[in-house]
Amino acid sequence: MKKPKIVILGAGYGGLMTTVRLQKMVGMNEVDIVLVNKNEYHYETTWLHEASAGTLHHDRVRYNIADVIDRNKVDFVQDEAIEIKTDEKKVILANSEIEYDYLVVSLGAEPETFGIKGLKEYAFSITNVNSARQIREHIEYQFATYSNEAEKNEDRLTIVVGGAGFTGIEFVGELTNRIPELCREYDIDNDKVKIFCVEAAPMVLPGFDPELVNYAVAQLERKGVEFKIGTPIKECTPEGILVAKDENEVEEIKANTVVWAAGVRGNSIIEKSGFEAMRGRVKVEKDLRAPGFEDVFIIGDCALIINEEINRPYPPTAQIAIQQGEVCAHNLVALVRNKAELTLFKPDIKGTVCSLGEDDAIGVALGKKMVGTKAAFMKKMIDNRALYMIGGASLVMKKGKFKVL
Amino acid sequence: MKKPKIVILGAGYGGLMTTVRLQKMVGMNEVDIVLVNKNEYHYETTWLHEASAGTLHHDRVRYNIADVIDRNKVDFVQDEAIEIKTDEKKVILANSEIEYDYLVVSLGAEPETFGIKGLKEYAFSITNVNSARQIREHIEYQFATYSNEAEKNEDRLTIVVGGAGFTGIEFVGELTNRIPELCREYDIDNDKVKIFCVEAAPMVLPGFDPELVNYAVAQLERKGVEFKIGTPIKECTPEGILVAKDENEVEEIKANTVVWAAGVRGNSIIEKSGFEAMRGRVKVEKDLRAPGFEDVFIIGDCALIINEEINRPYPPTAQIAIQQGEVCAHNLVALVRNKAELTLFKPDIKGTVCSLGEDDAIGVALGKKMVGTKAAFMKKMIDNRALYMIGGASLVMKKGKFKVL
Repeated sequence: MKKPKIVILGAGYGGLMTTVRLQKMVGMNEVDIVLVNKNEYHYETTWLHEASAGTLHHDRVRYNIADVIDRNKVDFVQDEAIEIKTDEKKVILANSEIEYDYLVVSLGAEPETFGIKGLKEYAFSITNVNSARQIREHIEYQFATYSNEAEKNEDRLTIVVGGAGFTGIEFVGELTNRIPELCREYDIDNDKVKIFCVEAAPMVLPGFDPELVNYAVAQLERKGVEFKIGTPIKECTPEGILVAKDENEVEEIKANTVVWAAGVRGNSIIEKSGFEAMRGRVKVEKDLRAPGFEDVFIIGDCALIINEEINRPYPPTAQIAIQQGEVCAHNLVALVRNKAELTLFKPDIKGTVCSLGEDDAIGVALGKKMVGTKAAFMKKMIDNRALYMIGGASLVMKKGKFKVL
Repeated sequence: MKKPKIVILGAGYGGLMTTVRLQKMVGMNEVDIVLVNKNEYHYETTWLHEASAGTLHHDRVRYNIADVIDRNKVDFVQDEAIEIKTDEKKVILANSEIEYDYLVVSLGAEPETFGIKGLKEYAFSITNVNSARQIREHIEYQFATYSNEAEKNEDRLTIVVGGAGFTGIEFVGELTNRIPELCREYDIDNDKVKIFCVEAAPMVLPGFDPELVNYAVAQLERKGVEFKIGTPIKECTPEGILVAKDENEVEEIKANTVVWAAGVRGNSIIEKSGFEAMRGRVKVEKDLRAPGFEDVFIIGDCALIINEEINRPYPPTAQIAIQQGEVCAHNLVALVRNKAELTLFKPDIKGTVCSLGEDDAIGVALGKKMVGTKAAFMKKMIDNRALYMIGGASLVMKKGKFKVL
């Protein structure tokens, strides 16, 4: 009898969690499991703001997939998914194609630029390891060049962060730690550096407790960040950004570094493959399958889950993706073993902590509001937990965040 | 009675050596000594190729001037010399002016681009700490960008070094050590990186023993360096360089990084101030004074000393500059004390070692030809000696080159 073949696309939080749970639950000859990922490594998406600012080396933010999968049960294919042909039950990869009996789509997010002119061309985005280290190096090169040029271009020392949501704020927080280091490294006066955080919405960190948000804004302003809230970016240019000042007027903020951190969408392969979606996110069934498909699960950033209490989607987070991976693995085993009942996914939000740089953060965890070093400690625990869930204690020891490192 | 005022312009090897010798030789109230330097630090010009390649951090290549001068005897002025008015016995600085009774011009070198089109605009040069770290960051940014771009531009991984003289070869040697590190850092295949060493003259390292030169070329070629000897650069463009292929034909070498290391000239302040000079270098008297001036010494890269054995100028080196500093200090004391006899300068070339990267070098020292680790060790000793001469054992301990660091 042919073994059922499970193909998992993407080794982010959701896909890798599905894989490691699955490999524990199935027998050696029960199923074929194939994990497809573009890189040979997994990276911590929620730590990329640190690699981008240069406060954490990018090798601390990634680990080899080979270190956490059981090669006796899982085949790893390093390739890029291009399109899913659901009618033929196969996936077109960049270098080959692969058939499946069951498919898990866990391909993560892409930056959403909302059609703003010039963003794709001139702004960086905190998307993956490659883009993170390019941002780090771009900023360093601007500082190095400033030191060496005869006529100083002050715009080299201005950084615009588009977006005051989670990623934008966390990145700005890291920058406030990194800038003094860079100024020492390149003999530059700290006061010459400007960081703008520009946000179209009228608030910082929507969804967070206002008391915590006020704390965050005050702390970051104290460290020199200038907030421009309720200020939509109209255009990004090689020289900086244009923002709406009032109805008819536009203001230019000159900056050699613009980092767009104001939104993500699901992977564009979703629409390309014919799934009904909103910005690349499919409103999945409670068992995490795509509507109308018995054999396709969609989890992580490409899945849309409604928070019924407020009738709005949950923001896609690592926490939810990991929980989905557990349910997805469980349901795959149930299908393979012809169990009638699938487990229904329900997010269990244990807390959310937003870092403001080393030693500072805000958040709610274990039902309590917290700020400062306590919240920063909790943030590290949350980061370590993601490692633990996927790779156990040994991965935490290798890649975990401890004060001494 | 007014104390004589000695002004020393530049805290490179020659100027700083003059200062530290002088401060030991004179009494507390015998003279006023003023040292003028653009930066508050001295840097090891002969180590800049390492900082440029990124194999040695730029802070290892510089030290604070305050750490080696005696503030009771020497006033330090951080400023930039703009012009010397010999008839008024004063120096115009960027932010002030200063009068002197005796002047030491030890202002170092500038890149000589021989009028080659585009070099000033598009090529980097290994000139000082600022330019070195810009080269390092430029190369890193090219590698980081290559990793992140969808359509790969292979020219980002090509580095052209103009010049196969001392600096060019030493820089190329460091690059062969650095490239594998960069490839690991940015997940790039080593084979994609190209290093060209382009030289107009028909030989590598003119003046060096041919046996040693053959060794150097073979070692560097083995590590992937491509030499283009007898190949003048006709133009530097934003895309790379144009070289003469034969009489009428021009060939393009595409490269996002071009580093010009093919020649230096004396500081342009020399001509500006009316000294008779050849490419910024004054053929000084044997007592190191400028011809026709009783009160102006010129040493280091701005001084031209003829090697009478071969009737050609000595190449300006740190070794010679340091020796000139000793003689200059001695002669200044003699003048202040109205001694009739000044000491005549005669270079004592103890040896020359050209580094080919970590653990490899070629050279002649203590009268012996040497290659490999032995020569590399000797190179480190020479580097440490320069520190010792100026700052004593404590400076060697702080900034010296030892294998373990």
